[in-house]
Amino acid sequence: MSDVLQQLDAVLESRKNSSDATQSYVASLHSKGLNKILEKVGEEATETILAAKDAQSSGENGDLIGETADLWFHSLVMLSHLGADSQDVVRELGRRFGLSGLEEKAARSK
Amino acid sequence: MSDVLQQLDAVLESRKNSSDATQSYVASLHSKGLNKILEKVGEEATETILAAKDAQSSGENGDLIGETADLWFHSLVMLSHLGADSQDVVRELGRRFGLSGLEEKAARSK
Amino acid sequence: MSDVLQQLDAVLESRKNSSDATQSYVASLHSKGLNKILEKVGEEATETILAAKDAQSSGENGDLIGETADLWFHSLVMLSHLGADSQDVVRELGRRFGLSGLEEKAARSK
Amino acid sequence: MSDVLQQLDAVLESRKNSSDATQSYVASLHSKGLNKILEKVGEEATETILAAKDAQSSGENGDLIGETADLWFHSLVMLSHLGADSQDVVRELGRRFGLSGLEEKAARSK
Repeated sequence: MSDVLQQLDAVLESRKNSSDATQSYVASLHSKGLNKILEKVGEEATETILAAKDAQSSGENGDLIGETADLWFHSLVMLSHLGADSQDVVRELGRRFGLSGLEEKAARSK
Repeated sequence: MSDVLQQLDAVLESRKNSSDATQSYVASLHSKGLNKILEKVGEEATETILAAKDAQSSGENGDLIGETADLWFHSLVMLSHLGADSQDVVRELGRRFGLSGLEEKAARSK
Repeated sequence: MSDVLQQLDAVLESRKNSSDATQSYVASLHSKGLNKILEKVGEEATETILAAKDAQSSGENGDLIGETADLWFHSLVMLSHLGADSQDVVRELGRRFGLSGLEEKAARSK
Repeated sequence: MSDVLQQLDAVLESRKNSSDATQSYVASLHSKGLNKILEKVGEEATETILAAKDAQSSGENGDLIGETADLWFHSLVMLSHLGADSQDVVRELGRRFGLSGLEEKAARSK
């Protein structure tokens, strides 16, 4: 499961530079600009919060996972728009919690 | 970098079950309940949006990456509170984009 | 300007009970349910925040006032959906700040 | 109840210009700047959404009205910070819905 986010970074980077905004939702977001991307981040945050309340009532997490995926996805489009990616975020989380990624583990195993 | 999120899931799970809420920010959030966790998700979404606007003006992404890490972190606490984790979200993103994780690739390489 | 909100309460109440959801945006929101109304509140909050950042840069408040009106409007639909109205909010603000409304002033002038 | 918002505008304007930020929550928000004010708008929007979900479950609107008052209050501080006020928003709502305020009614009654 581990490098899905890195693969997704590559997909987002390629779609960012697509010349045909009609072919790609991601290209369309970039062409509309940062405010549109941030509106989507805000929308998905609200939908995630509502899905979490409903998951607590129903005991069903399917919608919550889908909405959280939407939130993370649009935050990745935002990062891509501004020249950053998922690994910047994962690296920051790893740094805060003293967790190492594969590169560090590979280095230690030498 | 790849399994940092899985390691973080394990950290969050262990802190969720900590008996001493005063020792851990994560345990403290769980003890205050879902609404408090969701308030933090909403706060960090707003701070991420503001940091993105400021990053566009300044050309500096450091604060944006930190705020996005805060947003993802609190969404992981939310998922943990409701019995889900980062891999549910990563799996969903992989499914949508036809991306495979290491386990699947390992399975296919046999 | 002073009783616009009370008049708007009456408009919202009448449209809430409209039998034809296709004729009225407000009736449509009520028929879709509370989550849809709250998604709109969240969207408009994000758009207000973005408009405020842009107003600070541009010195132009027109969009900001329009987005704040959208936010207040959808919060009034939310209150109407749950059996409350603008005057409940205005009364609470008055109470907190020791401000009196017309009724109180009328009472004192007797 | 009708001119509470106008009175509140005057309170906010006077506190905006207070020289002693330690004496006033409003002055403190202004001194911290627009981002801090917008963080509060975002926080109160989230708390309003959570209160609405809980009001639907409980049938009790007290918390919802308090959180909506917090949301409106912080949006008024935002408007004040940028040189606008409640009457700009109320006028815009009146314009959209064809509702008239006292001034217009007074003019028509001549």
